[in-house]
Amino acid sequence: MTEQRAAPGQDERYMRIALGLAARGLGNTWPNPAVGCVIVNDGRIVGRGWTQVGGRPHAETQALAEAGAAARGATAYVTLEPCSHQGKTPPCAEALIAAGIGRCVAALEDPDPRVSGKGFAMLREAGVAVRDDCLSIQAADLNAGFLMTRQQGRPLITLKLAVSLDGRIGTHSGDSRWITSPASRQRAHLLRSRSDAVMVGSNTALQDDPELTCRLPGLPPKQPVRIVLDGRLRLSLTARVVATAREIPTWVITREDVDATRRRAFEDCGIEVIAVPPDAAGFPDLPAAFGELAERGLTRVLVEGGGKLAASLVRADLVDRMIWFRSPSVIGGDGLPALAAFGVDTVAEAPRWRRVRADILGDDLLETFVRAL
Amino acid sequence: MTEQRAAPGQDERYMRIALGLAARGLGNTWPNPAVGCVIVNDGRIVGRGWTQVGGRPHAETQALAEAGAAARGATAYVTLEPCSHQGKTPPCAEALIAAGIGRCVAALEDPDPRVSGKGFAMLREAGVAVRDDCLSIQAADLNAGFLMTRQQGRPLITLKLAVSLDGRIGTHSGDSRWITSPASRQRAHLLRSRSDAVMVGSNTALQDDPELTCRLPGLPPKQPVRIVLDGRLRLSLTARVVATAREIPTWVITREDVDATRRRAFEDCGIEVIAVPPDAAGFPDLPAAFGELAERGLTRVLVEGGGKLAASLVRADLVDRMIWFRSPSVIGGDGLPALAAFGVDTVAEAPRWRRVRADILGDDLLETFVRAL
Repeated sequence: MTEQRAAPGQDERYMRIALGLAARGLGNTWPNPAVGCVIVNDGRIVGRGWTQVGGRPHAETQALAEAGAAARGATAYVTLEPCSHQGKTPPCAEALIAAGIGRCVAALEDPDPRVSGKGFAMLREAGVAVRDDCLSIQAADLNAGFLMTRQQGRPLITLKLAVSLDGRIGTHSGDSRWITSPASRQRAHLLRSRSDAVMVGSNTALQDDPELTCRLPGLPPKQPVRIVLDGRLRLSLTARVVATAREIPTWVITREDVDATRRRAFEDCGIEVIAVPPDAAGFPDLPAAFGELAERGLTRVLVEGGGKLAASLVRADLVDRMIWFRSPSVIGGDGLPALAAFGVDTVAEAPRWRRVRADILGDDLLETFVRAL
Repeated sequence: MTEQRAAPGQDERYMRIALGLAARGLGNTWPNPAVGCVIVNDGRIVGRGWTQVGGRPHAETQALAEAGAAARGATAYVTLEPCSHQGKTPPCAEALIAAGIGRCVAALEDPDPRVSGKGFAMLREAGVAVRDDCLSIQAADLNAGFLMTRQQGRPLITLKLAVSLDGRIGTHSGDSRWITSPASRQRAHLLRSRSDAVMVGSNTALQDDPELTCRLPGLPPKQPVRIVLDGRLRLSLTARVVATAREIPTWVITREDVDATRRRAFEDCGIEVIAVPPDAAGFPDLPAAFGELAERGLTRVLVEGGGKLAASLVRADLVDRMIWFRSPSVIGGDGLPALAAFGVDTVAEAPRWRRVRADILGDDLLETFVRAL
């Protein structure tokens, strides 16, 4: 039996499940969005799916395969408008129609101009009842990375900081291991696993020589791309990220006028060198750099410092989310600042944020912020 | 009927009420402790009292007056051992005996050598049943200021900071109004009302010219003493705290070798000048200064900055509690640090704290810490 409408709250209930499935793909599906799909027949979930590693198969394909004949007359809950264009796989809207889906509930219209509204139109033309706005705010939050790339031509940028109570990311001597607790550092690895890429500035890369990998048991199915912003290619060819560039994708963003021999040396190590124009201060232009990342398919970039890169991003108003891990220690005024100076003269000019979440992690506090409007 | 023992949990129940009453006196009873008393006869509260402004009448006196004849055979719950010595008022232990109290439950022995254990002994000799350890941890927390003065010869020192997310108390130009929200600033005034004194360093006094008063409707019955730590008497004679020194007690802590004429000018304005030896760095010696404050009867001092005084206190391990008000704004690396440098070279050396409380205050977060052992 095809239901044309669900009982109050039923759509939201199943969409929440679909969003939970979609979240499993975060960090692993780029350049595609992380989508979730639940197929419900007569009050019973008969199929579930989410975008697989690398972006395929799509969520709908997975869910339809699980549902089989039970998809006939069923309702499909999808966190994003089903695709309508022939890509590397046949369009999902077509597959839903072919399977006999009676009603399709989606959370968001796909902002991709190849799809936008066309998936819904294809379904409606085939007689499928369509609702296109179920939990759209929650879905936009989950899909923020994908939406940003399509709407603003850059990935979602999340700034992560691990600081002392007085806002220091290290002592004056550069010591920073470890300001935060083991629980915080594990959580930070979880953040990496949900990101398409992890970025640091060259000072941090030189000072800490980090691996920038996610090291959690069983996670992730796909390591995030490692990106170093290094305008003058100061990074050592023996740095850890360089030495392992053939196993884990490693990109370096530099100035377009950088020495060609030096650039080739990095490329010979398996590194993708992305060259952008310098900005007024002589650093790689940040909007151009993030535009290049979106071009390459990245939707979610986690920036892990240091203070200079963090300040440049805040000054350019490029930070969408901030995640502060804070330990209950004090380092004092000669410690390394979480953010370098970025031109704030009066308190009224200081950029403000909105706390959306706070977690206790052992002795540490973890706060998540979005930019206040 | 005199009960020799209460039902399980009954003592704690009434002691909690007595502690709540005692808390009303915090900030207003120095040099005396803030004590609460509840008199219970046959399951009914017949008298309540707490130390009044300036330290007299005592809690027991108040509660006995309210109980009248109902005190006979009743149980008295007192947050601190009743006094046994003839001070400006007759000893409370004697008053309890005279009123016919049958049982006395106290939270703590009085650390004052004139009293310690003698109040309990006096009661027991008169045939009053005594319990001396009911909710002693909670009472020690409440009475921390009084206990510190008696046991360590200095007041309880609470450091209060109002900072941006990145740990700044102002911009590079000194602008600091207002980093935190109106709700936070009101809470800060409440902290002042519960303190015997409020202290700032001379930089803050010169930069902000604060009033350092508690400005809440109906509070407090007694303004906290205002204290400026000013080794070289740089404070202007036209500063607000100086101009109002005859209305609200104002003390200045300086070096003992300061110019006598300048010192006299401050004294002529109604300021109490406290002279202490300089420390190795040439600043007024902090342990000596706080010793002088305890001598003068202060039990709870709220230090409100700035960064240099805060750092000196942390370096000297003189901070008992820290209260961080934090706004969701970022100021950047050229802003004024919450704490100046105090010699931390490695993360392992950074003093650690234990969070005992966290409150959301509008957009701000308020965290309370005690020194981690």
